[in-house]
Amino acid sequence: MRDIFHEELDGISQSLLQMATLVRSAMTDATKALLTPDLALAEKVIEEDSIIDSIQHDLDARTINLIARQQPVASDLRTLVASLRMSADLERMGDLAHHIAKQARMRYPNVAVPSELIPIINEMDKVASRLIDKLSAVMEHRDTVRALEIESDDDEMDRLHRKLIGTLLDDNWAHGIEAAIDMTLLGRYYERCADHAVSIARRVYFSVTGEFAPIAE
Amino acid sequence: MRDIFHEELDGISQSLLQMATLVRSAMTDATKALLTPDLALAEKVIEEDSIIDSIQHDLDARTINLIARQQPVASDLRTLVASLRMSADLERMGDLAHHIAKQARMRYPNVAVPSELIPIINEMDKVASRLIDKLSAVMEHRDTVRALEIESDDDEMDRLHRKLIGTLLDDNWAHGIEAAIDMTLLGRYYERCADHAVSIARRVYFSVTGEFAPIAE
Repeated sequence: MRDIFHEELDGISQSLLQMATLVRSAMTDATKALLTPDLALAEKVIEEDSIIDSIQHDLDARTINLIARQQPVASDLRTLVASLRMSADLERMGDLAHHIAKQARMRYPNVAVPSELIPIINEMDKVASRLIDKLSAVMEHRDTVRALEIESDDDEMDRLHRKLIGTLLDDNWAHGIEAAIDMTLLGRYYERCADHAVSIARRVYFSVTGEFAPIAE
Repeated sequence: MRDIFHEELDGISQSLLQMATLVRSAMTDATKALLTPDLALAEKVIEEDSIIDSIQHDLDARTINLIARQQPVASDLRTLVASLRMSADLERMGDLAHHIAKQARMRYPNVAVPSELIPIINEMDKVASRLIDKLSAVMEHRDTVRALEIESDDDEMDRLHRKLIGTLLDDNWAHGIEAAIDMTLLGRYYERCADHAVSIARRVYFSVTGEFAPIAE
């Protein structure tokens, strides 16, 4: 009985990892679609968001079903509840990639990002990818040390975000209001994506230790 | 045994309603702090966000504890899982009120919102309050009819949001980039707040019927 339970628990963990892999590709592809610009790639990200959504639906149904059938307690129950929350965070990260891709499509054939901001957006994408890679490792190995590292990696995203807003506010900004609005929203999408990665890392920490992760200052 | 269970379930529902009431006040106060401007009120919203957070922590611990002790299945388990998600949505709505209050504080003693946009922000606040009031009724009475109505009420928020962005893009916009960035973020906070209300309403619908609510087009 317990063996089947842990097999199904492993299956749930695998699906979460699969979601993280898809989210990572979606973010990278959305960024590429935005900066190239590449309409077909933007359309692909927009369309494939439904794959992430349906994995989440399926995963949550399996998780609830497993709770109902096996009635786990303590650490196993904590892990399953954490899975439900992590799938919600990953689904939302997929939505943010979808938003970036929609921004790319809306401005196509123009590039939504003025050339001097392309390096920052590229860096934000790299930080997001690094965070998601680390997150996958945290999820796979239930690694509480790296879970705490993700919180400080997020500081790098916040720094880039402040730099982005600083550029918009600079007297030399020559791209007008529309581009400033686009960049404000895009900046927020990357920043929120990193926030969700932090949130998932904190859930792994909690589900392993039963304690909340200390808040980094 | 079952009676204690339903008593505790009622307690959880009451806490969710309490969160909704606090979120509603936080949004209204944050808007007032923003438009007056009122620094003390902004500080109050910022500080009291931790009350909403701690109700969520306590509520989630009780919910998980109840699942572990009573091992509910079917509809009861669905209700408890939905509670976990609804508390997460409400907590996030509290964060958005907190963001609005921080914006108010950052620009104080100036008003972050240019005078011609005050009516739109007032309307967005009213729509948010109406949505949260209706949501409380949906949660209290497990009312699937009104749960579906909330989705179309959200269209009103989207309309206001588009109007707001339209004003920023108008040639007559005379408040520069900084105010445009502020308004883009503020608009997004109200819009996201309404999205979370829709999401909670959909969870009530699902937990009552076992079916996903039809998606409004």
